[in-house]
Amino acid sequence: MDRVYVHGYDTRENRRLRDQANTLVELLHSDTSYRAGSRVLEAGCGVGAQTVTLAGNSPNATFTSIDISEDSIADAKKAVEFAGLSNVQFLQADIFDLNFEPESFDHVFVCHVLEHLSRPDKALAILKRLIKVGGTITVIEGDHGSTYFYPDSEPAHTAIQCLVELQKRAGGNALIGRELYPLLRKAGFNSIHVSPRMVYVDSSKRDLVEGFTKNTFTAMIEGIRDTAIKAGMVDQIVFDKGIQDLYRTTEADGVFCYSFFKAFAAKS
Amino acid sequence: MDRVYVHGYDTRENRRLRDQANTLVELLHSDTSYRAGSRVLEAGCGVGAQTVTLAGNSPNATFTSIDISEDSIADAKKAVEFAGLSNVQFLQADIFDLNFEPESFDHVFVCHVLEHLSRPDKALAILKRLIKVGGTITVIEGDHGSTYFYPDSEPAHTAIQCLVELQKRAGGNALIGRELYPLLRKAGFNSIHVSPRMVYVDSSKRDLVEGFTKNTFTAMIEGIRDTAIKAGMVDQIVFDKGIQDLYRTTEADGVFCYSFFKAFAAKS
Repeated sequence: MDRVYVHGYDTRENRRLRDQANTLVELLHSDTSYRAGSRVLEAGCGVGAQTVTLAGNSPNATFTSIDISEDSIADAKKAVEFAGLSNVQFLQADIFDLNFEPESFDHVFVCHVLEHLSRPDKALAILKRLIKVGGTITVIEGDHGSTYFYPDSEPAHTAIQCLVELQKRAGGNALIGRELYPLLRKAGFNSIHVSPRMVYVDSSKRDLVEGFTKNTFTAMIEGIRDTAIKAGMVDQIVFDKGIQDLYRTTEADGVFCYSFFKAFAAKS
Repeated sequence: MDRVYVHGYDTRENRRLRDQANTLVELLHSDTSYRAGSRVLEAGCGVGAQTVTLAGNSPNATFTSIDISEDSIADAKKAVEFAGLSNVQFLQADIFDLNFEPESFDHVFVCHVLEHLSRPDKALAILKRLIKVGGTITVIEGDHGSTYFYPDSEPAHTAIQCLVELQKRAGGNALIGRELYPLLRKAGFNSIHVSPRMVYVDSSKRDLVEGFTKNTFTAMIEGIRDTAIKAGMVDQIVFDKGIQDLYRTTEADGVFCYSFFKAFAAKS
């Protein structure tokens, strides 16, 4: 289930995921670390973009990082080895078909994964069973509907909407960030605390202009160009103008805004 | 100029402005205080919703708070007297027709004002002339285009868009928050630093559910109902459904997001 990964698996996409991770590490991950001896399940590690930070921040916890894609696991393994970390064990596995005993983990960590699943509620229920009583879950997701910018541009919103629609057709939800609170509530978690992590970019923030607006967000939208046009979702001229207008927001007087959401909840 | 205040001046509106100020004081104002002896111009004080916080946080600075509306000034005076503050002088005046000498102030403070002006760039240029070299300006504005929520609702977006459109027709710009960086840049300020102040509301945040989503934001949209319907902008049924859906976001599984922007810049 959910095997169509909307962003694809090519090399540029992998570089995009690493750029994103580097730029956003502080914003998204600086407040996540686990106690010595903790057993942590990272569900959906992808190419290891977050794994390196996660395991590096908690050198005395042990991580089991799973992903549905064998190729991504191979990349993630390399990234973790390159970082000199030895506290991560990798496993190719489907979140919806796991072989762990109930209450096998102290903590579960899920980042940029639920957006791609047709049953995020079911995934959370499955993951909850794997957490010990008193344990926690951390979930991080973006929300493409949180995107706005200056100068404003209708074609840019149209191009973004193509990704939202493609993700929907693949069974996912690109607007899931805002929904973390109700999803965790529905799954029966307690002490749910959600905090928005807004990325605000103007030209005084050179690293974010390059690392986020251009190389993460706009590259992601550009990545679905041919698929969206082929699917008849958008006129080629409109899409290309949308991309041009997204780059326009990276000029001296431009501004770009996007929000991630980070949720923390307990199993009691 | 800009004499049509889109929100009106009635008592419910005044209460709304005070509720908003109380709930958001920490988020918007906790990092603003001025040194003893500073002379500060508050341009557009309205009913004094911010003035009380501003003057209270800097008891040894002196404030000159101006507004175009004599009635608002009267309310602001009462609010400041009620708070027992004596460091504020009020003056009815138009930002575009001021009688102060150049470089009369150490600092200028502008909050929820530029959104109502047809020439915010000109207003900033005028205000800049009043600041001493080495002085600063602080600007706070909302951005209605930053509004999103769960459950999502097309009618709710339509109702919000009516306010954006009404404000535009009155010469203002309800999407100005994202634009503070370019506006201050254009006015020739230096060391511009903009920080977003996102209000994230889920049902675990009771004070914000009441104080912000219901009594501030939704009340503001409800306040333009008759005007928007009379102007033929929206069908009555759609508008009312939009309001209903905004209230729906305040239920146990609802989420509401809105962003203000706070800018700080220097005159060098």
